[in-house]
Amino acid sequence: MTAEKILLAHGSGGKLTQQLIENIIYPIFKHNDGHDLLDAALMCIGSSRVALTTDSFVISPIFFPGGDIGKLAACGTINDLAVSGAKPLALTVGLIVEEGFPLQDFKKILVSLKATAEAAGVSVVTGDTKVVEKGNADKIYINTTGIGTVDDGINLNPKNITPGDLIVVSGPVGDHGMAIISQREGIAFQSPIISDCAALNGLTEGVLASGGILCMRDPTRGGVATTLLELAEQSQMMFEIKEDNIPVRPAVTAGCDMLGLDPLYLANEGKLVLIIKPHKEREVLTALSSHPLGKGCEIIGQVTAEDKKGRVLLENSLGVKRLVSKLEGPMLPRIC
Amino acid sequence: MTAEKILLAHGSGGKLTQQLIENIIYPIFKHNDGHDLLDAALMCIGSSRVALTTDSFVISPIFFPGGDIGKLAACGTINDLAVSGAKPLALTVGLIVEEGFPLQDFKKILVSLKATAEAAGVSVVTGDTKVVEKGNADKIYINTTGIGTVDDGINLNPKNITPGDLIVVSGPVGDHGMAIISQREGIAFQSPIISDCAALNGLTEGVLASGGILCMRDPTRGGVATTLLELAEQSQMMFEIKEDNIPVRPAVTAGCDMLGLDPLYLANEGKLVLIIKPHKEREVLTALSSHPLGKGCEIIGQVTAEDKKGRVLLENSLGVKRLVSKLEGPMLPRIC
Repeated sequence: MTAEKILLAHGSGGKLTQQLIENIIYPIFKHNDGHDLLDAALMCIGSSRVALTTDSFVISPIFFPGGDIGKLAACGTINDLAVSGAKPLALTVGLIVEEGFPLQDFKKILVSLKATAEAAGVSVVTGDTKVVEKGNADKIYINTTGIGTVDDGINLNPKNITPGDLIVVSGPVGDHGMAIISQREGIAFQSPIISDCAALNGLTEGVLASGGILCMRDPTRGGVATTLLELAEQSQMMFEIKEDNIPVRPAVTAGCDMLGLDPLYLANEGKLVLIIKPHKEREVLTALSSHPLGKGCEIIGQVTAEDKKGRVLLENSLGVKRLVSKLEGPMLPRIC
Repeated sequence: MTAEKILLAHGSGGKLTQQLIENIIYPIFKHNDGHDLLDAALMCIGSSRVALTTDSFVISPIFFPGGDIGKLAACGTINDLAVSGAKPLALTVGLIVEEGFPLQDFKKILVSLKATAEAAGVSVVTGDTKVVEKGNADKIYINTTGIGTVDDGINLNPKNITPGDLIVVSGPVGDHGMAIISQREGIAFQSPIISDCAALNGLTEGVLASGGILCMRDPTRGGVATTLLELAEQSQMMFEIKEDNIPVRPAVTAGCDMLGLDPLYLANEGKLVLIIKPHKEREVLTALSSHPLGKGCEIIGQVTAEDKKGRVLLENSLGVKRLVSKLEGPMLPRIC
């Protein structure tokens, strides 16, 4: 252990991230009362159920097609609250800025963060700014922590997933990841790829009202593949998905072919993965597609009672099935 | 504006920090309803008053006499809640780690953070870890965001300060700042200087119960001088303090003499500045000195109705009075 070091892959959202959390972080912070350390924590304050979540954003580049680190910092935390079933109320903003960072960019990013939060009905209530010497940060890093309230009766938990449940995505996958990669690599597509960065709380509110939602996630770092693997593990079910049913924009497919990437592992910042009760299929899909951010929704697969618990099986267009594997390396550092 | 850049001094807690907040950050995030953007935000959730505060910690070195960045990250945010009159309940932890950071140090810091929070009766409920490439951070930066509840009837506000109120510190000032500087500069004192880094919520709870507290602050970046200047400005009162009454450890005085520093500007991480009603002097001092963290408390001055509103006047041992000025430069970068 002495000589072990933190690797870039520990931050990729894949296998090493999971190991770091499970073997190092979780044992330290695990509560004596046996509660899990969740991505969004739920607590009771007075008679209210309150959700709390935190995320630091270190994306590079800080300005990208479809957004910037300020917009992303607002959306990312709002979305973590939204998928936990909470109504986001307020954000805190913690800034770490590199000495020499242009004040104009600083302002642009904060204006963007504030506008995004405001449009989503969320207040920025307090903040903190630290400056580090040139070379000790890359431009700007932003932490946002969000608080929201969870209505009585909402209980989204992968433990409730059972065989026959449907697996849904709210729209084309991989846009954010490919937008960032193509900007980094200087690849130009005929139609430029725009990050899907968006606040999902309006969408989740409508979808929750439709009933039948067992679980929601926003498939960010590690993409839809990583999210499905986590849900399959947590529910101890097997997930079967069909490649042909997974919506991917042609430009994202083209970019993936060119770079040898798989869109299932690309980050999304404005998409939902939902596990729903099959008898509520119509209500959920109607709720999704009646919202601008859910128009491209698709059922991509089903939960089964097969023996491979905690695994995800992908069937390609030829009918060949293979197990989806965990992300091994540092696929894309600083994607969010 | 175009060519202006973020300077180290923007993070020092002094004049430039105040300008950055007042001229750039505050106008962007100011709420339409006219509420101030406070260091700890107060909101109502159900029938509960909830306080929310955030802080990022970028201290260098990460291990120092009396603590480490993990302990500091727990104490700093717990103390921001405590001085706002809140009972701290929970923390979130956002980590930004430099690639190559030793896993053993990572664990040591998280264990320290957790132990500090636990000893203060505060839970760590959720977290996030990001890794950036070697050279894009200095070892580890930690954001903690804290949530607490504020009892009915508690209303700490500098606007309540009136002439005749007393100015109190809970113990010797400048320990944290001098502990960090002496480690950075490699200065050895006969008795080593230990950071005062400590969670103050136990102390503030007892002090609040004594009655007579108008306002509390923890004088971190920029020290007691900066805290008093802020309170004098916010209350539009003049503060008169006596140098001889300000407790400073001999080793801190010696270090300041050697380095040409003023202990009034050195950071503290386990001290309170309190403004109290004069008729409650005895109760407050008894509450302070009956707690291990308040044993060295002293009345250091008084609020007056003199014409210099928003200023702080310091009387030295010869009876000479001078105005305390705002911290101008980047006195000590990365002190917290």
